[in-house]
Amino acid sequence: MNEKEKNNNKKPTGQTQQKRTYKRRPSASKSQQTAKKETSAPAVRSERTRQPRGESRKTPVRIIPLGGLNEIGKNMTIFECANDMFILDCGLSFPDADMPGVDIVIPDFTYVERNRDKIRGIVITHGHEDHIGGLPYLLKKVNVPVYATRLTVALIEGKLREQGLYGKVQLNVIEPKKTVKLGCMAVEFIKVNHSIPDAVGMAIHTPAGIIVHTGDFKIDFTPIDGNIIDLARFGELGSRGVLALMADSTNAERPGYTHSERTVGGSFEKLFQQGEGKRIIIATFSSNIHRVQQIIDLAVQTKRKIAVFGRSMITVVNTAIELGYLHVPEKLIIDIEEMNRFPDEKIVLITTGSQGEPMSALTRMAMNDHKKVNITPNDFIIISATPIPGNEKYVTRVVNELLKSGAEVIYEKMYEVHVSGHACQEELKVMLGLTRPKFFIPVHGEYKHLKKHAGLALEMGIPPENIIIGSIGNVIETDGTKIGVISQVPAGRVLVDGLGVGDVGSIVLRDRKHLAQDGLIIIVIGINRASNQLVAGPDIISRGFVYVRESEELMVEARDVLSDTLANCSAAEMREWNTLKGKLRDSLSDFIYQKTKRSPMILPIIMET
Amino acid sequence: MNEKEKNNNKKPTGQTQQKRTYKRRPSASKSQQTAKKETSAPAVRSERTRQPRGESRKTPVRIIPLGGLNEIGKNMTIFECANDMFILDCGLSFPDADMPGVDIVIPDFTYVERNRDKIRGIVITHGHEDHIGGLPYLLKKVNVPVYATRLTVALIEGKLREQGLYGKVQLNVIEPKKTVKLGCMAVEFIKVNHSIPDAVGMAIHTPAGIIVHTGDFKIDFTPIDGNIIDLARFGELGSRGVLALMADSTNAERPGYTHSERTVGGSFEKLFQQGEGKRIIIATFSSNIHRVQQIIDLAVQTKRKIAVFGRSMITVVNTAIELGYLHVPEKLIIDIEEMNRFPDEKIVLITTGSQGEPMSALTRMAMNDHKKVNITPNDFIIISATPIPGNEKYVTRVVNELLKSGAEVIYEKMYEVHVSGHACQEELKVMLGLTRPKFFIPVHGEYKHLKKHAGLALEMGIPPENIIIGSIGNVIETDGTKIGVISQVPAGRVLVDGLGVGDVGSIVLRDRKHLAQDGLIIIVIGINRASNQLVAGPDIISRGFVYVRESEELMVEARDVLSDTLANCSAAEMREWNTLKGKLRDSLSDFIYQKTKRSPMILPIIMET
Repeated sequence: MNEKEKNNNKKPTGQTQQKRTYKRRPSASKSQQTAKKETSAPAVRSERTRQPRGESRKTPVRIIPLGGLNEIGKNMTIFECANDMFILDCGLSFPDADMPGVDIVIPDFTYVERNRDKIRGIVITHGHEDHIGGLPYLLKKVNVPVYATRLTVALIEGKLREQGLYGKVQLNVIEPKKTVKLGCMAVEFIKVNHSIPDAVGMAIHTPAGIIVHTGDFKIDFTPIDGNIIDLARFGELGSRGVLALMADSTNAERPGYTHSERTVGGSFEKLFQQGEGKRIIIATFSSNIHRVQQIIDLAVQTKRKIAVFGRSMITVVNTAIELGYLHVPEKLIIDIEEMNRFPDEKIVLITTGSQGEPMSALTRMAMNDHKKVNITPNDFIIISATPIPGNEKYVTRVVNELLKSGAEVIYEKMYEVHVSGHACQEELKVMLGLTRPKFFIPVHGEYKHLKKHAGLALEMGIPPENIIIGSIGNVIETDGTKIGVISQVPAGRVLVDGLGVGDVGSIVLRDRKHLAQDGLIIIVIGINRASNQLVAGPDIISRGFVYVRESEELMVEARDVLSDTLANCSAAEMREWNTLKGKLRDSLSDFIYQKTKRSPMILPIIMET
Repeated sequence: MNEKEKNNNKKPTGQTQQKRTYKRRPSASKSQQTAKKETSAPAVRSERTRQPRGESRKTPVRIIPLGGLNEIGKNMTIFECANDMFILDCGLSFPDADMPGVDIVIPDFTYVERNRDKIRGIVITHGHEDHIGGLPYLLKKVNVPVYATRLTVALIEGKLREQGLYGKVQLNVIEPKKTVKLGCMAVEFIKVNHSIPDAVGMAIHTPAGIIVHTGDFKIDFTPIDGNIIDLARFGELGSRGVLALMADSTNAERPGYTHSERTVGGSFEKLFQQGEGKRIIIATFSSNIHRVQQIIDLAVQTKRKIAVFGRSMITVVNTAIELGYLHVPEKLIIDIEEMNRFPDEKIVLITTGSQGEPMSALTRMAMNDHKKVNITPNDFIIISATPIPGNEKYVTRVVNELLKSGAEVIYEKMYEVHVSGHACQEELKVMLGLTRPKFFIPVHGEYKHLKKHAGLALEMGIPPENIIIGSIGNVIETDGTKIGVISQVPAGRVLVDGLGVGDVGSIVLRDRKHLAQDGLIIIVIGINRASNQLVAGPDIISRGFVYVRESEELMVEARDVLSDTLANCSAAEMREWNTLKGKLRDSLSDFIYQKTKRSPMILPIIMET
């Protein structure tokens, strides 16, 4: 958060400046400390000599991340060349504990709005919220064509419908291996594996060279849909010469490989045997359609019917069936109302709530608050997900409550019921090795992830001066020969609360946090404007401070303190209402702190009569 | 949280009732489902036949947990026999995200206060906050002698000093293997290993039989102080016959063994080599004196001086040196002010902040906010702890900021720089196997931990009806033959906020959360009591709702809505102020929700003039 605040505070320079000094950034220089390892793995480097070097300067391309660096979520990047720009992804992130009342967080679109005439389109890598969730807000400001794969387009359509934008935006379905021309740049879609179908990386063909952006990816040699990440194409591009690689750093701290989605199916198979005779309930992410497919296949195999719970799960499952991403035999999925017609052992429930979200179907089941499902010792429950940092306590609470109802609960590390959708270190090395980029820009991660990913690139022989650990708002420019951060554009976080976009800022948040910490005391007095005499009050009203009925004495004393303060005010002070408010606030604040060691917000209100 | 709320809501029966029906609790019956495994491990059971069975009834003993069941923290248990009672541990827990502004949480002492005349003393297992943190609050209500080991007494002294209780309470140092007589019961202290020195378990000798309480424990065969847990004594007691075992469930989900504290020293040794030429900074828990000792030993070995940072670290290190728990050569520890006299490579800083606590020394260093320490690329930083659930984001933020300063940071799972202080499954089995209890009561853990621990006991042959998964407030009675929950006493959580103990309850918390979510709007009007005419307002004041300067239009419209409402009020309504307030609140609330989809707290204030 602090990081984001910092980004927010960076001096916005408004427009990209054209000075081309390519100043080395301090973070890059720091990476030199580990550069000694470089010599031990020269393979990539020697290969790179095939790339043209020291040629005459080409039209430079500028890469401007507006989200997803030094943070998890709200991924968004601008690519800019000559008079053309396009946007890659437009995600949201979820609020931290220090943003009370905030629903979602989206990137700052100022730079996009200032350059609306240059924007040729938006390309989207896949349909997760952290890549498409900001799109409706962006499209309300800048309505340009959107290009994405089929499932991604369907998911975007759903979002636009919710926000009353359906039909007003041009959505284009692009198949992997196809290319979209966007001004002087062209974007080629390349199949990758991830925890949602139809995910792609992008090869951005620019006058300065090819820039590869992986999007979120993993390498799955046994994916459920049979389509392996198009490693060959990444390799071909590498052979032709990749100017820069921007790659997913989410799992850069994890050694080894991410397991195949198929391993989850293997675990499920054993668990279905273990849960024989019981009702099986599985909670997972609605977008993980391949996991849902595996559950469906096992239901068919074990002759169980399926009931689907949770708004997003129902929506995604329906969309996926419609588009042919989910293969479901006739009559396998039953209506919730039909459940009672089948015995427990003939049913699988698929539900949302794998993160213990307070309003989700699974949480309501756990809390005995679900109209249709009552958890019993005859339930066998699988939570097929890992808690996202910050959600651990919610998940634990749900697990505890489910266990108390006597159900068997399979969660977290106990069995292999979840695999990540992101590449681990060995896969990241495969991507670096295939694309053999001249420049490397780790993306999608907090600083610690970007730094680790940069470390892998160093080990593989990319010189430290060719690695950029950027920040949002950085204008990273390369002309094919050099790379550097040349300037800064406005970037940060915009908070969405209800219908309000951006009207909750640091002052509102500060007040909310203050109110949450110690509550509020309101002082009300009435003053006659003509005579400047006190005609009513002082009255005290408090909320979130103490339980008043049990603290009457304290409140009486507090009123006395205020009466004394007013009695000691000169006639002049009774005229100067700002001074008077300050005096009332200070005297009450001192008294309250001394008595309680608390500092509630104190609001003096003077009524003029 | 919900769990605790539930406990709070249980009907308090005031005093222990003497009905001895030994009703089977539902949770115990549920465990029967796994009871079939029992036959495969009969060793423990056949041994138990040596215990006297079916004898005439003995004076029953009652075990009343007031904290530490279905929660992590605020451990506290009452033991009661005939007319005597004593208390085992009195800890605190830290507030969850749904308790804004709360400093700490302590147990509900109602039952203790009602029985003050029966309390013969308090025995303490070790000096961690979750075992001693509630003590000053308890002693203010019930001043009875406290019995603990030497270091524990010293740490309690420190707490009492802070709360102005020093010298007013009788503190008694008890060595392991010694016994304290408390009415008709006697408590024997038994050495255990844990992440703080001088930790003990207790054997409680009662007329009904021996009850063993492990306290927090692990089995460390190579502890830093050379004192291995007194396994022999636990075994002796087992041979004599243990009526009930109450054992630490914190790590009951983890298979295998917890590593020895000494393995951390081995990791540190390698890391000190890796950090050669740099300043080394190590953050850890101040109470982990054995870890501090290992750092000191390595500092001596590598000819570095040590500087100590963080209030609690300084206090604990000084206490431990004074009492001889830390062995430090003369002049090894230098004053912070002296640091500049030594080059980086000759210094080790030991600091608090391993949990990323916002005000801690390490966090301030990371945020460039520490007066004496400036983080540079010449720093080698080790975070020697695992984030406690809920603290992950804080720790990550600190790691990111330290890395940005160019320092090398060793954290979490990257190296073995931390081991747990709690027994894993194999150690828990050793304890069960040595004590061979007739009854088993898993303690210290959330429901999922207790349940897993109960599962281990079942596997080892303890019949399900002899295992009690309790809740706080349960009165668990046993006469040596049977065991059961016979009644319920008041139990729950008491919130401490500043000087206030218990004055923040559910209404105050609800208001705080409401204020944090959407902020506050105050409506002020003045009414002449004689004429019932509006003489001032309506005025609107908001905090934490919107940034008013950018939402002027909304506020003007809101005022118009209120004016309309007032204009439409009949004379009768203008006299009925509660009705009037309701009308104002409702009309504004509807308007605001329709415009913003937010529901701020709305406070109408009517001034009488």
